[in-house]
Amino acid sequence: MRPLILISNDDGYHSKGLASLVDMVRDMADLLVCAPESARSGFSCAFSAMDYLTLKRRNRWGDGVTLYSCSGTPVDCVKIGLDRLCPRRPDLILSGINHGDNASVNTHYSGTMGVVMEGAMKYIPSIAYSLASYAEDADFEPCRKLIRAITQKVLSEGLPEGVCLNVNFPNTKEFKGVRPARMARGTWANEVMACQHPRGFEYYWMTGNYINDEPEADDTDNWGINHGYVTITPTRVDVTHYEMLDKLKDWDEILSDCR
Amino acid sequence: MRPLILISNDDGYHSKGLASLVDMVRDMADLLVCAPESARSGFSCAFSAMDYLTLKRRNRWGDGVTLYSCSGTPVDCVKIGLDRLCPRRPDLILSGINHGDNASVNTHYSGTMGVVMEGAMKYIPSIAYSLASYAEDADFEPCRKLIRAITQKVLSEGLPEGVCLNVNFPNTKEFKGVRPARMARGTWANEVMACQHPRGFEYYWMTGNYINDEPEADDTDNWGINHGYVTITPTRVDVTHYEMLDKLKDWDEILSDCR
Repeated sequence: MRPLILISNDDGYHSKGLASLVDMVRDMADLLVCAPESARSGFSCAFSAMDYLTLKRRNRWGDGVTLYSCSGTPVDCVKIGLDRLCPRRPDLILSGINHGDNASVNTHYSGTMGVVMEGAMKYIPSIAYSLASYAEDADFEPCRKLIRAITQKVLSEGLPEGVCLNVNFPNTKEFKGVRPARMARGTWANEVMACQHPRGFEYYWMTGNYINDEPEADDTDNWGINHGYVTITPTRVDVTHYEMLDKLKDWDEILSDCR
Repeated sequence: MRPLILISNDDGYHSKGLASLVDMVRDMADLLVCAPESARSGFSCAFSAMDYLTLKRRNRWGDGVTLYSCSGTPVDCVKIGLDRLCPRRPDLILSGINHGDNASVNTHYSGTMGVVMEGAMKYIPSIAYSLASYAEDADFEPCRKLIRAITQKVLSEGLPEGVCLNVNFPNTKEFKGVRPARMARGTWANEVMACQHPRGFEYYWMTGNYINDEPEADDTDNWGINHGYVTITPTRVDVTHYEMLDKLKDWDEILSDCR
């Protein structure tokens, strides 16, 4: 039987990045695509705890590619894809190609990463692909060869349990190379823009400038992307901080005083 | 100057858990509370990338406690709290007390945890408190002594950079003790309930059963809570999987083949 890949994203089912990804991997596997109805950037691992969801079957990419759009979040798309749409357990989950990078702390905000975290939580090998360009008509072609190679490798060999891959491409026609990279320490600043509503009250847009807090470190995702490299960052489901866990054993006054 | 604590949650500004937390720590610091207008469970680290936000000043808890409700997500509340509302950089960020536990993979879905991940991303010591009861009128009083002790300790000593605390209370009047605990490996199953709309189409609710995939392991948050212990799980901002990062260096065919 051909392998099955479940694909989602956070830019929505109509995005060019999703169409490009489908085109790049469609000869490797049957594809089941379930992607948000509209853009869901910044949705992280959010799921719809209170709202109902709807699904629409769409005809778009012909044989071997089944497409649904879903009214919910990227994580909802994976959950409903696995529970209702996939004819069998997928061999792989792919997310993207995202319009914009997902490096450093953006890992936490990203709906693209939500998709693959959800995949890893379900013990399915999962890879997120992102290109450092927000342009609606961004050129994803330079990513093709590497996306095919990485996808094929993980399809053949799998990934260790509890880890997914976060792959970021710089916005260049030729890459300097591929670098395994850790998440950079970085911060968003000036995140709130206040505006005046015609009815007399203030309202706010979330915006901001990203700052790499360790620009000299050459082993980070930010450094790699900024210097023309493709970065691969393995990302963990288990977010326990084990060093601090050990230190907590010395919190005697807390540990002994439990009533 | 008195310390300043920024407080938020994901159950909304009107929730009993929030009022209880404010009451428990108000003598320790000035409090700035910015909490969602309505319940925002399952919002993870989501922020409002596309929608505008509004804020309302509310009078509720008298001197020393400033309260705003915000139309956005828990993470929006922290961002706007830091950027627009706090008179100075807070010494601590607290989240909760959540109605319901936030153990295992719920760490990723939880808006309560979104608040403290955002705090840790801003290098501010941050603690999430959750009680394993979804009741609207849950009894939070048994948590008082420990919440005061943990809050006071972190207010005095801080936390290492890039780590926040996830504290979960079992739903009992007396606790057996306090245990440092790691995130359990667990899975949600049967997550989608299909219903028939009167107009003839299917719609879906997200639901599910949680399964602890390592029920025998006694060092996890699930085990502790289920056995009457309060658990403290240190949680990391840097989600790089370093063991896998090392292994990626052997991906020669990928690393050398970058065009």
